[in-house]
Amino acid sequence: MKILDALNQAFSKYPQVVEAKSRVAYGGACGSYCEEASISFFNDSCTLFPCKTFEDVFEALNQGKADYGVVPIENSSTGSIAVVYDLLSRYQYYIVGEEEIRVRHCLLAPKGATLESIDEVYSHPQGFSQSQEFLNTYPNWKCIPYFNTAIAAAYVAEKNEPHMAAIASKRAGEIYDLEILAENINFSQTNVTRFVIISRELKLFNKPTCVSIAFHLPHRPGSLFEVIGIFSVFSLNLSKIESRPLANHNWEYLFFINFTGNISQNTLTTLLPIIAEKTDYFQFLGYYPQFIEKGPTV
Amino acid sequence: MKILDALNQAFSKYPQVVEAKSRVAYGGACGSYCEEASISFFNDSCTLFPCKTFEDVFEALNQGKADYGVVPIENSSTGSIAVVYDLLSRYQYYIVGEEEIRVRHCLLAPKGATLESIDEVYSHPQGFSQSQEFLNTYPNWKCIPYFNTAIAAAYVAEKNEPHMAAIASKRAGEIYDLEILAENINFSQTNVTRFVIISRELKLFNKPTCVSIAFHLPHRPGSLFEVIGIFSVFSLNLSKIESRPLANHNWEYLFFINFTGNISQNTLTTLLPIIAEKTDYFQFLGYYPQFIEKGPTV
Repeated sequence: MKILDALNQAFSKYPQVVEAKSRVAYGGACGSYCEEASISFFNDSCTLFPCKTFEDVFEALNQGKADYGVVPIENSSTGSIAVVYDLLSRYQYYIVGEEEIRVRHCLLAPKGATLESIDEVYSHPQGFSQSQEFLNTYPNWKCIPYFNTAIAAAYVAEKNEPHMAAIASKRAGEIYDLEILAENINFSQTNVTRFVIISRELKLFNKPTCVSIAFHLPHRPGSLFEVIGIFSVFSLNLSKIESRPLANHNWEYLFFINFTGNISQNTLTTLLPIIAEKTDYFQFLGYYPQFIEKGPTV
Repeated sequence: MKILDALNQAFSKYPQVVEAKSRVAYGGACGSYCEEASISFFNDSCTLFPCKTFEDVFEALNQGKADYGVVPIENSSTGSIAVVYDLLSRYQYYIVGEEEIRVRHCLLAPKGATLESIDEVYSHPQGFSQSQEFLNTYPNWKCIPYFNTAIAAAYVAEKNEPHMAAIASKRAGEIYDLEILAENINFSQTNVTRFVIISRELKLFNKPTCVSIAFHLPHRPGSLFEVIGIFSVFSLNLSKIESRPLANHNWEYLFFINFTGNISQNTLTTLLPIIAEKTDYFQFLGYYPQFIEKGPTV
């Protein structure tokens, strides 16, 4: 079984560390939350560079231009980033780590602009939905979805018109020299985005705690019940379940599952073939340390 | 139990029908796929009217301006419409029916425009992701996300500039008098969107086959396994599972499940209290006829 070979090889090198001078591709622009996650995860010797779309991050790995990629996978208020799940299944790369960044959206505008002069707001669609309650108090503002919060801030800075604003981070405001018209406008004050660190090779960094897998189930009643039963038998915690439609198979789903618990090399090499046997398609996505809060992100 | 009262009352009136002259609020604009779904589900005596956002559809019901609402819930290629799941849980309305519409995106532009003159494309973000392969062949086009495919078509028609195009349905092109520069540009040729018909009251239309529920699980290993086991015991098919994060509870999820099978009034009144007992929070979303293919949508 190819997965077991890769896993045993990774265990033989355990624990691996991020190589000095690694090249890291992240989603968005300078000033994006994704860049913040990259700065937080990687050390100073690494070179970070932005990619316009999340697919561009995977392509940077594919073309050997990057050693690691950083993409958001889930927001605590608005949920999974569907396109990233699809890219994980399409490119078959590994998750080697995760990072969490607290989202604190600001309304940013060129110097001289006021809440009264604004009539157009640019942001990522999730930026709008996370700030919906604030935006509801300005029903006449036109919300124009943009690629990314930081790219929206850069665009508003470039246009330099007092009727335009962006929803992005405080840091993006500083980078693009915009004024903060309103701070912490996201409705949930515990709004957190989770990012994954991806690599073409399976690597086991120090103290991995979480396993991510993807699978497709055969069409018979109880097939999901059977697979979920395996985790119960091994006393593992199912911490996340996500389903994504299979392209060209209407209403058939690829399941993504995270599980945690007392996981040894033995547990994994026993467990994974059992799951693979009960599923039509099986993908091992990685075994990595979960994010541990390091104090507030500035 | 309130759910059982509502359910028994609905069974006492079974089968209900759509009342003549019902008022129907749908998401998007004239020419949207959502309008197509509404036309297909409701009879000629009903009055259909568009709402700019999906939340506006729920608000139209809340304010008594509409008897039914129609919103998309899932696309076969790009997955669930997250915001609609959140609205279903927030407004506590019922699903009384479903409809499916085959998505056939076109590239629409004002008369005189050509593929060479285009440099800006407007559509819903799902319109872009569903047409990604086509768009990849025009890397210099700027894709500008918009509220809705039909509103994007209306906007491009209003601007009437040869460098602007919209991705929307053929029908939207006819309504807004735009030319078709490319047809069937969605990557999956079996691209289907599923819509739900919502109502403030629980109603049972003829031959219901699918039950939708939502629940939140207590924090202990095996809790999902126990609930999924219930469906196995009753020999019911779990046809869909979706998880959405709970607002203000990081990494806790609300599960949405659809199940089908041999479901009687007795099964439901036995089953639902068992599920309610094993969950922290339980919501019965409806029992409704699943969509049956009526032949190709024009």
